[in-house]
Parts: sequence; C-alpha cells; structure tokens
Amino acid sequence: MTLADAKARDAVDPLRRFRGRFCLPEGVIYLDGNSLGALPAEATARMADAVGRQWGDGLIRSWNAEGWIDAPARIGAKIAPLIGAAAHEVIVADSTSVNLAKLLGAALAARPGRRIILSEPGNFPTDLYIAQGMAGAELRIVARDQIAAAIDDNVAVLMLTHVHYKSAAVHDMAALTAAAQAKGALALWDLSHSVGAVPVDLGAANADLAVGCGYKYLNGGPGAPAFLYVAERHQHVLTNPLSGWMGHAAPFEFTDSYAPAPGMKRWLTGTPPVLALAALEVGIDLVAQAGMAAIDAKRRALTKYLIDCAADRCPQLTLVSPADPAHRGSHVSFRSDNAWPLNAALIARGIIGDFRAPDILRFGVTPLYLGFADIWRAVDHLADLLDSGKWDAPEFHARPTVT
Amino acid sequence: MTLADAKARDAVDPLRRFRGRFCLPEGVIYLDGNSLGALPAEATARMADAVGRQWGDGLIRSWNAEGWIDAPARIGAKIAPLIGAAAHEVIVADSTSVNLAKLLGAALAARPGRRIILSEPGNFPTDLYIAQGMAGAELRIVARDQIAAAIDDNVAVLMLTHVHYKSAAVHDMAALTAAAQAKGALALWDLSHSVGAVPVDLGAANADLAVGCGYKYLNGGPGAPAFLYVAERHQHVLTNPLSGWMGHAAPFEFTDSYAPAPGMKRWLTGTPPVLALAALEVGIDLVAQAGMAAIDAKRRALTKYLIDCAADRCPQLTLVSPADPAHRGSHVSFRSDNAWPLNAALIARGIIGDFRAPDILRFGVTPLYLGFADIWRAVDHLADLLDSGKWDAPEFHARPTVT
Repeated sequence: MTLADAKARDAVDPLRRFRGRFCLPEGVIYLDGNSLGALPAEATARMADAVGRQWGDGLIRSWNAEGWIDAPARIGAKIAPLIGAAAHEVIVADSTSVNLAKLLGAALAARPGRRIILSEPGNFPTDLYIAQGMAGAELRIVARDQIAAAIDDNVAVLMLTHVHYKSAAVHDMAALTAAAQAKGALALWDLSHSVGAVPVDLGAANADLAVGCGYKYLNGGPGAPAFLYVAERHQHVLTNPLSGWMGHAAPFEFTDSYAPAPGMKRWLTGTPPVLALAALEVGIDLVAQAGMAAIDAKRRALTKYLIDCAADRCPQLTLVSPADPAHRGSHVSFRSDNAWPLNAALIARGIIGDFRAPDILRFGVTPLYLGFADIWRAVDHLADLLDSGKWDAPEFHARPTVT
Repeated sequence: MTLADAKARDAVDPLRRFRGRFCLPEGVIYLDGNSLGALPAEATARMADAVGRQWGDGLIRSWNAEGWIDAPARIGAKIAPLIGAAAHEVIVADSTSVNLAKLLGAALAARPGRRIILSEPGNFPTDLYIAQGMAGAELRIVARDQIAAAIDDNVAVLMLTHVHYKSAAVHDMAALTAAAQAKGALALWDLSHSVGAVPVDLGAANADLAVGCGYKYLNGGPGAPAFLYVAERHQHVLTNPLSGWMGHAAPFEFTDSYAPAPGMKRWLTGTPPVLALAALEVGIDLVAQAGMAAIDAKRRALTKYLIDCAADRCPQLTLVSPADPAHRGSHVSFRSDNAWPLNAALIARGIIGDFRAPDILRFGVTPLYLGFADIWRAVDHLADLLDSGKWDAPEFHARPTVT
C-alpha cells in the first residue's frame, strides 16, 4: 500500500474523468461529500443562467417557457433510475424532513387503527423527531436485530434509513419490507445516505415509500431540495396531508376545494424552489452519466482501500463500519476517544471529514471525485497525527456551534 | 394625464434610483411583481458567490464560516421591521404552504376542544387547501362581511390573507385579531400579498401568528423560501408539528428525542435552503433600504394613477379593487369577460400583468421598479387593444398549462 500503487489504481479508474467535472479547492481532500456534496463545475453556469436569463429576463413567463412548473417531476424522473423506481414514482419537493412528515401522515391515514411508527434507536435524528411529531401516532424504537420480530398488527409503518448515517451499515431492504408487509404495515425507506453512491432497487424490494436527500451524493448544493417516492400501486390511495396548491389537480383554477393531482404531483405542497432545483439537476445528471454500476464498483474498492490503509497505519482506531462492502454504504467510520480533536487536526491540514457525536470520525468516500491517492494521503496524515500526538494541541479541542 | 405629466412625476420620485437596482428586460413593463418579483441586480453576484466561493471552496465549512446555519434567523430579523415584528419573532423557512401547516397544527394543539379553522371563500387557494388537510380540524368559510360574527367558541384559529390576492382588498387586521381573541381564538395572517409593499404592523394589531412569501414583493426569486412569525408571548407555548432536526434545541448532538429549540428556531424543520436564502436576502435588503414609508407612499400614488388612467381610457373595464388606497394592496384588478385574451395580447406587447380565473386582469404595481410613465404606457396599450379590437385575435385565446 504505497502512494505509487494508489496512483496506479487511479490511472486505470474508469471514473477518473469525473473529478474534473467538480470544483474542489486546492489543498483539500474532501471526505465529507456524504454531508454536503462538492460543487459540479457546470452548476456555476447553470445557476447564472437560471438567475440572469430565466428569472431576470423571463420573469413570470419562465414558469412555462423554461419548464419551471415541470421541474419537480422532470428531476424526480432523473432520480428514479438511480433507486430502482419508475420515472413516474419520484418527485422532488421540500426537505427530507418535510417529505417524511407527508409520507408518515399518509401511511398512518392508510392504516386506520394502527398508530405505531417502528424504527431503530440511533436512526438519523430528523426521522425520529418527525415521527415523534406525528399527531395520533407513537414512535416505537427497537434495536436493529429485533426489528423484524417487533413488527406486529399495531405497526402502521416501518421507517428505516437504508444506510446508517453514522456506521454506514446497510439494512436488508427487501427482507424488512417483506416483513412489514406480512404484518400489514407499510415500509418507508430514507435513502439520504444511499442515493447516488449505493445501489438501491426500490422496485425489486417492493418498497412502499421512500424519501431522500439532494445535497449529499447527488451534489445538489447546500440545503438542496429532497425527493419522495410512492410505489405506483399506492398512488391512487395515499394523499398528501400537506395539501398545498401545487399538489392540486388544477392549481391555476383557484378553486376553494382541494382535489389531489393524479400521480406524484399530489406530493407537492408549495411553489417549487426553482433556483435550487437548477443546481440539483446538474448534480443528478453527473451521477446518471457515471452510472450506478461504475459508482458502486468504485465505492466498494475505495472504501475497502480506506479500511485497509487505516488498519495498517492507524491501529489506534476502531472500525465501526461493516467490513463487507455489500453491507456498507459509501462512508467509513472509526471510533476514537479523540475523534473531535483528530477531526479538527485533519481539517487544519485540508483533510475534511467529519465528527459525529460522541466519538465517531466519519469519512465520506465519494466515487465521483475521490481517488486512491486521495485516500492514501488522508490516511497518511491521520497516521502522522496519531503517531506524533500532534492532534492533541489546544486549538483542536475548541468546539464551534456546528460541526 | 399625459405621458409628459407622468415623466414629470417620475423625475421627482424619491424611489426612482431603485429602478437601476433591478435587472428588467428591454421592452417590458413588468406588472406581475406581485406574482414573481424582478431580479435585483446584486443577486447575480451574490448567487455566484454563494455557489462558487461558499459552496465550492468552503464546502461543509461554510455552515459555520459563512453563517449558513444562522441565515434563517438572520434574514427573518431583516423581514421583521417590514411587518411590525420584533427581530426575534420572525424566521425564514420552507414554503408559505408548509409554514401554514405548521402554524395551523400548533394553533389547533393550543386550543384543545376547538376544531374550526375560520376563513373566507376565495382566500388564496393554498391557505384553504392546507386547512382542509389538517387532521382533526374542519375548515369553515364565511363571507368577508360576516367573519367577525362567525367567530365562536369552536373556532381555534382565524386564518385570513391580509391583502386579497385577486381583489387587493385589505382586511382590518387589528379589528379581526381582536374579535378572534375575544372568543379565545388565535389569529393567523397570511402576508404574502402585503410584505414589502403594504404597511403591516403585527405588533400594533396584537397578531398571534403570520406567514408570508419571499418571491413576490420581497424579490427573493422563483420559489424563494417563505417566513413565519410567532408573537413572543406564544413562543414558549406553541410547538412545531413538523418537528425536524433543525428545530431541535441541540441538532448536532444527534439524540433520539426531540426537544424544541427556544425562540423561533423551533419552527425550522429540514436543512435550510442556503442558495435560495442568498438570493432572498438581497431582495429584502433592497426593500429595507427603500423603507416601508416611501414604498407605501409610492404604492398609494401609483395604484391611484393606474386606476385613474384606466377609468379615463378603458371604460370597458370594471375596477374590482377598492377605491380607497388605505383599503387596497399594491395590485389593481379589473373584471372583463375578455380578461384572458386581453392579458395575452398585452404580454405580446411586453406589458406583463396576469390573468386570474375566471375573469380578472391583475396588475402588480411594484413601487421599487415601476414609475408613472410605465403605468401610462401600459394603460395606453390596454386602451389601444380595447378600442381596436386587436385583443380578439385567435392567438390570444390559446391557453398554456400555467398562467
């Protein structure tokens, strides 16, 4: 495991040309694309066009002339093949959190007499928090290995995150979906840490519902719009409790009574965030161009390489992510009592990963813009910090508001 | 009422320098800023900076370094003085529709035993639709002049739009708020057609709750984030039913249990839309620089001028907006059986107003970037179309998806 070997692997990487499609600052190795994806080079021009030409010159006319009104469905259809969905099963809207509230509300309404939302402790917080806010429902959380057994006739919906945000452990989507459905519950999957990096096949898993994030591996920009999926078989049954005008069957007739649009459009609520959608579309197009098969192959190789390098050079760290790449997402996490200062010391050297409370060092491995040499260099810095004790300087212990 | 007179009035307009702060296309008189505000010139550079430098170079670090995490509260505080609120009573989040759902849900929870949301027929559709989607509640709509009398002990919340989106009629916010409160109900005001153009004093009216739109008179861009207001006296009592992680007291501790943040931050749900917020802030800054007193004075003069010119030159049209500028918002609407083709014919001449079903011609009069000569020219075209019958060409009767 030498730098020369890593460079040799990069030279034959079929995705290496994608690195140039992103703007990455000099001197930075960016291992946090699982939190905020990097800027696609084309997004700069696309956003300038959306602002200057479409908004500035087109003004209100652009709702039709530039297809603004269709953007949520058009961009949703581009996400669909990345997650094993049909084009008409995905739409872009709001945030992951708001979309969770919509689908949980709809699932509860579709399962009258059942009030349990089943999930696991340590699921991504917003999933648990949104579930806790659902009127008339109760969140039940059970340990990962007891989920299937905990599904009973009181469960309206099983809500899980496909790839765990901290450990990167992957749930067996097909098996858990089948277990939920066997008890009459619906299965709702959060794909935030999967989409664009990890294979997902909602159709093969017979998933009922899903949501996902636009600003991680889809590289849609900070706070990018999220998406939601409703299996075709549910589309005529479930309705959006956040029944805003953009989900109306005829929004521009301005009638007083809500009537849901057919298909996925009923899952829209307010006016689509046009400028943010323009950036998101660029990021999704890049993932589609690279192809999920190539991305998955590189993800497996690159995360394994990070794990192997760290095992060799940083024995002080404890791997918390699964060893088997089929059960692991696209980030790799280690436990360390010194995770906070280690992360801060790495950032000071331009190695940007992140810390997750209370003791996790997390490294996002984004196949589109990282190579083996990046991983080698990052681990080399990490080993140097650990071996030298330089991570223990006072400035690396300071904690700002947000990490 | 000559063009020369109009130009003379423009020459002494204290807001005339603001026109140059906006990008408006050649050959267009834009009378639809009440639907989508025009592009502030500075938004181009600000958005390029948000994309290239803050996202591209700063990456995840910009959540702290560029103040992304504080943007919803910071920009909310800039909206506050425009609507008579304290800085800590306003925050920017989501869409108007989603914010309505949050505040209606909170209001219903705060008034147990009461299930009525009271509003009026013909209120902006999304307000009515969102109310219809509220679980456990019932929307009651009564005619405008019977609202006060219809408030009874079953009403949890009175929900009205301050300036009517079609007629521009203004509700008496203080009187209706007092009437609601006298019966133990909360008053929720939609300021979408007011904020940035019409004086609003939530504090003086003792309003309980409010929402508003960022993409109309605030010029925040297509689908810009919206805002919400909760009077300080309610901030420790009401909680957000869309209890996402950004509204948590300590979002980055990643605990399993929701605990609402103090103050307005609890009204956040998902990750803030950073790029869209950057554009919105520019638009709000322009309104603040002009000042609501100057904007209101020009709004009164300019809408009156439009009404007077139309009365003189277009007697075929029926004014549906109030004659008294104190009871009128910043748009002016006329009824015509030929509203659709007239609007289409005007657009073909670069006079961009809009049509609202079934028979309304609506003209937004934005004090920051319109002058008296613009109004004169627009009415001159309208009179020419009416007098010549040229509005009745087949191409002006075609109807696209969206207006």
